[in-house]
Amino acid sequence: MTTANSNTPELLKNVLVTGGAGYIGSHVIYTLLRTHKYKVISIDNYHNSFPAALTRVSSLALSELKESSPEPSAQDIDSTVIDVHECDLINPTAVRSIFSSYASKGGIWGVIHIAAYKAVGESSEIPLTYYANNVAATISLLQIMQEFHCTRLIYSSSATVYGVPPDIPIKEETRREGDSVYGRTKVMCELIIEDFCDSIMNDGETNPFQAISLRYFNPAGAHPSGYIGEHPRGRPENLLPLLAHMAVGTVTDPVLKVFGNDYPTADGTCVRDYLHILDLAAGHVIALQALEEGSELNAKVFAGSTSSNGKFKAYNLGKGHGMSVMQIVDAMRKATGHDYKTEVIGRRRGDVPELIADPALARAELGFDAPRDLETMCRDLWNWQVKNPTGYE
Amino acid sequence: MTTANSNTPELLKNVLVTGGAGYIGSHVIYTLLRTHKYKVISIDNYHNSFPAALTRVSSLALSELKESSPEPSAQDIDSTVIDVHECDLINPTAVRSIFSSYASKGGIWGVIHIAAYKAVGESSEIPLTYYANNVAATISLLQIMQEFHCTRLIYSSSATVYGVPPDIPIKEETRREGDSVYGRTKVMCELIIEDFCDSIMNDGETNPFQAISLRYFNPAGAHPSGYIGEHPRGRPENLLPLLAHMAVGTVTDPVLKVFGNDYPTADGTCVRDYLHILDLAAGHVIALQALEEGSELNAKVFAGSTSSNGKFKAYNLGKGHGMSVMQIVDAMRKATGHDYKTEVIGRRRGDVPELIADPALARAELGFDAPRDLETMCRDLWNWQVKNPTGYE
Repeated sequence: MTTANSNTPELLKNVLVTGGAGYIGSHVIYTLLRTHKYKVISIDNYHNSFPAALTRVSSLALSELKESSPEPSAQDIDSTVIDVHECDLINPTAVRSIFSSYASKGGIWGVIHIAAYKAVGESSEIPLTYYANNVAATISLLQIMQEFHCTRLIYSSSATVYGVPPDIPIKEETRREGDSVYGRTKVMCELIIEDFCDSIMNDGETNPFQAISLRYFNPAGAHPSGYIGEHPRGRPENLLPLLAHMAVGTVTDPVLKVFGNDYPTADGTCVRDYLHILDLAAGHVIALQALEEGSELNAKVFAGSTSSNGKFKAYNLGKGHGMSVMQIVDAMRKATGHDYKTEVIGRRRGDVPELIADPALARAELGFDAPRDLETMCRDLWNWQVKNPTGYE
Repeated sequence: MTTANSNTPELLKNVLVTGGAGYIGSHVIYTLLRTHKYKVISIDNYHNSFPAALTRVSSLALSELKESSPEPSAQDIDSTVIDVHECDLINPTAVRSIFSSYASKGGIWGVIHIAAYKAVGESSEIPLTYYANNVAATISLLQIMQEFHCTRLIYSSSATVYGVPPDIPIKEETRREGDSVYGRTKVMCELIIEDFCDSIMNDGETNPFQAISLRYFNPAGAHPSGYIGEHPRGRPENLLPLLAHMAVGTVTDPVLKVFGNDYPTADGTCVRDYLHILDLAAGHVIALQALEEGSELNAKVFAGSTSSNGKFKAYNLGKGHGMSVMQIVDAMRKATGHDYKTEVIGRRRGDVPELIADPALARAELGFDAPRDLETMCRDLWNWQVKNPTGYE
């Protein structure tokens, strides 16, 4: 084992983030930049995101760096600059040429694959677009990674792979069963990645490919600076952004429609496991570090790999606590001062009463924790919304 | 309803067959040509097939036509000519241009999508190639069909979608669970097709797309003329072709290795449901006819559609009778006169003891039957092998 001399810093590792400009992508990139260990390359087609997010992430990281170290090194400054590529993942030629352009710069060390279409309702209307953008694009990305001997992948999965879970809290070993087109695209991608990890190389060697699938519960909030946050194109689909938009006045609904209050939960409304976006982002950085061969973390994580040849592991990223729709409304009422009116209407097709992670595995093996509380999530969300009533536009 | 005047024949319907030159494709095309109702368009990349198969199918159909009608019409003769395209389904530009070239000729009426990689063992070695060729190619084909308003699909599925079936004989409603990479590609394609059938169009109209998935059990035999048959590239993977090659001398193994004789079956060896390739092919033609809107068959088939918006239906194509490895060896011994020696070795990973179709649904709704017996399958296979010891080469 070599120890880096503090005067000759280790080379930055090239990490490709797909969907880098999105809500999750931008916070993941911010968290990566803060480590000053990675050169971040973003691929995004800006279908549901904005290039401005990347500019802001970059200046945020640079300003924090200058605060902490008045004379940062050139390498440190370089580590705050993002290589930005506008590119569609379903275009293999474009993706291949990006991989190719880093070949002479040490290659791409690892990929964090976040890009995907994610609206459950829309997925049932345009399923082929979802299968092409989520599944076919992932197959193509994996093929290109294999061509370029890029062997480390963090995959953005979701609690949606559990469908209607048989038990709460949900353990990672729960059977996977997509309950919507979107959900099925996530299950299929996990299966494909797992099969790839499992495959035997031509030369009979073990596949060096390693993948960690992160199953997100409900990310919320924003960076406390209010520089970056969630900007859904069109009307917000999710509860927290919708409440923020109602409070700031960009959604003018007089009442919030609550879909059912007769679920078998404490107050009858649906319960979800919310975690702060920066905690979620931190999970990605830990997972990426776990792909470092020879490290203690690597050994720990893949000791229980479900893949027989290569290395595949899935982790829940959640707090392990549930919040009901009504609790969320109350928390946002406190954070915003807005007097939300609610109206209970019928249940919405496809809604599951309760989705709560069992976070034990991620805690034990990755040391992952999601300490920020609901109050912080609401405060940071509101700060972002007030500073950017129309988001990045 | 209009009745076609016998003097002015109905226009031939353009039917695209993917994987048209393969073992199943060539027999399906032969059976289509015999109806003189279709203009057949073949797409194949000849990865596991030979262009010669299509030439032979065409002359076979023409010679049979001339035997039955000494002065066939120009339209009848045209119906024996296959439009042959060498094309890879994973190349959307090439596929799109083929669809485009028929736009002025009435468009493509329906698609029989057979092309796929199919070796279970290989699929675990090169999973990404399987996912790309089987799953991504199917997504792309469906997208192109949608662009060109082509709304009728017959999909080549397989008994492999049942994995290790919980009950024998296997009903279509059995849960789907791929037990190999190959099996998972088939399950995923069925799910994707079903979701597409289920989707609501932009204009709120019902999706006019109709699909029938045919779940093959074990096709065997050849056309009795010996003109067309199965020509696996490399060493045959399946039992019957292997036995035929051993008898003809192109495989020189002194003994047949039998993988396990301690299964819970009558003689302890694995049991499969073999059906004659021409019976299987006939099933495709009936299924294609069932996609004719307004027909009695169409109404019958989709009355029990599992899709809530469009029309999706899956049928087993099998005889409903099982044959053990030892019974197959005996039948081939009779057909070939070859004195097979067998040696029982250990079970093979992934083998299921028994796979037998419940053929009741296909019989009741499609009127499908598989009358040809094992003796006929072995005789026709042997006839093909003797006339073509090295297949199409």
